[in-house]
Amino acid sequence: MQKKYLMTPGPTPVPPEVLLTQARPMIHHRTPEFNAVVRNCVEGLKYVFQTEQSDVLLFCSSGTGAMESSLANCFCAGDEVLVCHNGKFGERMVQIAVVYGLAVTVLEYGWQEVVDPADIAAHLAAHPATRGVVVTQSETSSGVLNDVEAVGRIVKDYADCVLIVDSITGIGAVECRTDAWGLDVVMTGSQKGLMLPPGLAAVTVSPKAWRAYERSTLPKFYFDWKKYLKNLEKDTTPFTPAVSLMIGLDRSLKMMREEGLDGIIARHARLAEATRQGVEALGLELFAPVEGRGNAVTPVWVPDGIDGKELVRILKNRHGVTIAGGQDEYAGRIIRIGHLGYFGDFDITTTLVALEMTLSELGYDFEPGAGIRAAEAVLMAEEED
Amino acid sequence: MQKKYLMTPGPTPVPPEVLLTQARPMIHHRTPEFNAVVRNCVEGLKYVFQTEQSDVLLFCSSGTGAMESSLANCFCAGDEVLVCHNGKFGERMVQIAVVYGLAVTVLEYGWQEVVDPADIAAHLAAHPATRGVVVTQSETSSGVLNDVEAVGRIVKDYADCVLIVDSITGIGAVECRTDAWGLDVVMTGSQKGLMLPPGLAAVTVSPKAWRAYERSTLPKFYFDWKKYLKNLEKDTTPFTPAVSLMIGLDRSLKMMREEGLDGIIARHARLAEATRQGVEALGLELFAPVEGRGNAVTPVWVPDGIDGKELVRILKNRHGVTIAGGQDEYAGRIIRIGHLGYFGDFDITTTLVALEMTLSELGYDFEPGAGIRAAEAVLMAEEED
Repeated sequence: MQKKYLMTPGPTPVPPEVLLTQARPMIHHRTPEFNAVVRNCVEGLKYVFQTEQSDVLLFCSSGTGAMESSLANCFCAGDEVLVCHNGKFGERMVQIAVVYGLAVTVLEYGWQEVVDPADIAAHLAAHPATRGVVVTQSETSSGVLNDVEAVGRIVKDYADCVLIVDSITGIGAVECRTDAWGLDVVMTGSQKGLMLPPGLAAVTVSPKAWRAYERSTLPKFYFDWKKYLKNLEKDTTPFTPAVSLMIGLDRSLKMMREEGLDGIIARHARLAEATRQGVEALGLELFAPVEGRGNAVTPVWVPDGIDGKELVRILKNRHGVTIAGGQDEYAGRIIRIGHLGYFGDFDITTTLVALEMTLSELGYDFEPGAGIRAAEAVLMAEEED
Repeated sequence: MQKKYLMTPGPTPVPPEVLLTQARPMIHHRTPEFNAVVRNCVEGLKYVFQTEQSDVLLFCSSGTGAMESSLANCFCAGDEVLVCHNGKFGERMVQIAVVYGLAVTVLEYGWQEVVDPADIAAHLAAHPATRGVVVTQSETSSGVLNDVEAVGRIVKDYADCVLIVDSITGIGAVECRTDAWGLDVVMTGSQKGLMLPPGLAAVTVSPKAWRAYERSTLPKFYFDWKKYLKNLEKDTTPFTPAVSLMIGLDRSLKMMREEGLDGIIARHARLAEATRQGVEALGLELFAPVEGRGNAVTPVWVPDGIDGKELVRILKNRHGVTIAGGQDEYAGRIIRIGHLGYFGDFDITTTLVALEMTLSELGYDFEPGAGIRAAEAVLMAEEED
């Protein structure tokens, strides 16, 4: 027997009370019972997205479906859009924009850099016909947090330009004020801060984004926002929804309301800080720059002389702890420790203990226990507040 | 306490052993464990689709996503396609084709009519540049079964024309020989004959369909077939898959292999015949024409003087038995009894008993027990074979 621990930034662990809903007998989706589930999910998501003025639409898809929907529903072929790219998911947005024939300008940064809102302001000033700005709030590939609040202040002045925010690993981990920050489209996925299995994605659509929708001519059907909106008026969905996942979402959103969004974000900040202090105390270097570190995932440089893929393999096979490796050019060079969603103090310390044990086994030179000591200090200090 | 019975053509009941897989702790999708799940699912689906030469791709979406993918991946804007429409799902294919700017010819029939392959042959002879023919094998809205084998014989002679078959409620209920019948694209959804919750859809892609893909220029990303194919070579998926549903599919496909496809189809034929004989013995009239009755769902005319919506409501609220009503112009005028997937003899008799009780309560004049007697005769006769 080996106990298993899932410490990745998605899929994330699912609380037992949510898992149990997944084993319930199937119900039909065109029933008053399921209408109530739809209603609860939309209301709960509005709370989580911090929006009253936007509609929240739910798709049966992964987060990528929501990303594609945001471009297909807001634009026409040839529209000028600015896509900020400082990691794998920003890059994906560029790819989708190209597929749909948008006139894409890519604002490209390194994976260890933060998107600079001043660059966006300069671009929009020079290209006022720009129809959309796309930013990833929390780059899962790099752990970098971009300042979408600042971007919101800039884009707000352009009446025909929508701000699209990929907050797939942001929602439920960091502050993301859809209304207050003027974010027109914000998206997340079920297997992240919402503490569910993968299979659902949600987007918010502001009045400005609906105006963009009205002039958009790109082809869409399964992800056509208006079809979802029309059916939401009757508390239902245009196509067969992922019934069991939405029943689970109803449950997990109740848990989130009980904890409260402020409490959830504070917990994530605390666990992220404990993780960062823990790995730094082992002499490891954090990957994300100090000015933009998110709460969902902590990427860490693998020390010289150690094979990062081997490190991940030993953690998983010998200790039962699954963390993520690096993606693309950082494969084998960084590790990514997830602390997104259903995570508590001892998940962080378990990961750090397993990391210490694995680093010892790989011959890395450090003071055993140092990481845990640093993490404990953070976890206790915060408790005293 | 009221026991609940789900007797709809989708979502369908999920076997307890599959439901229990849905409550298992989450695992990561980029692991050898999940690679094995992907491999098993694809192999099992190839068995169910009866194909060796086609690839089988799995999406996290409802069946409509697979429908959209079939058009977006095979065609260019302006391509001539022939869409057969004798029910709600044929109509949906027309809508998607229009959204994507295809030059659609609609071969429209009444909901109680079967698609006539001779009409397709005549159209192709007159329009040999036609790039695709779209047919719904099992029309869930009407219970009509179209002869896709005959259509396959016709389309086979047109080297640049692909045959797309919506078999969402066909697969696992009626014969559908992908390779032998020359079906280029066949699709199904998880919440049907595969006995799972909704959230997954599968398509087969023949070599001829891959040739169509190569020339297709319609925009697609989330449903881009090639992305799935490339990842299947590594037993994985391009985007985060619906992990729990695929683990469930692995389990339900094992159950299907144990029973065997011939056994599954024979069981569905038997249960459908018992249902038909049962309702006819009550003096009710079947909706689908005798020359095209499928095994997934039995639509029945509501007798004069009875409100079909009230009938469905009483069955559900008083007796705990959920069946489907009619759609569109047949709302309130027909009922649809599902027997697709995880169904046995006593599911059919339970539905018929509940139907008899409800008809009595609504004052319909018939001989109580007559429906059950007729169903029993079918169920026993078959057992003796």
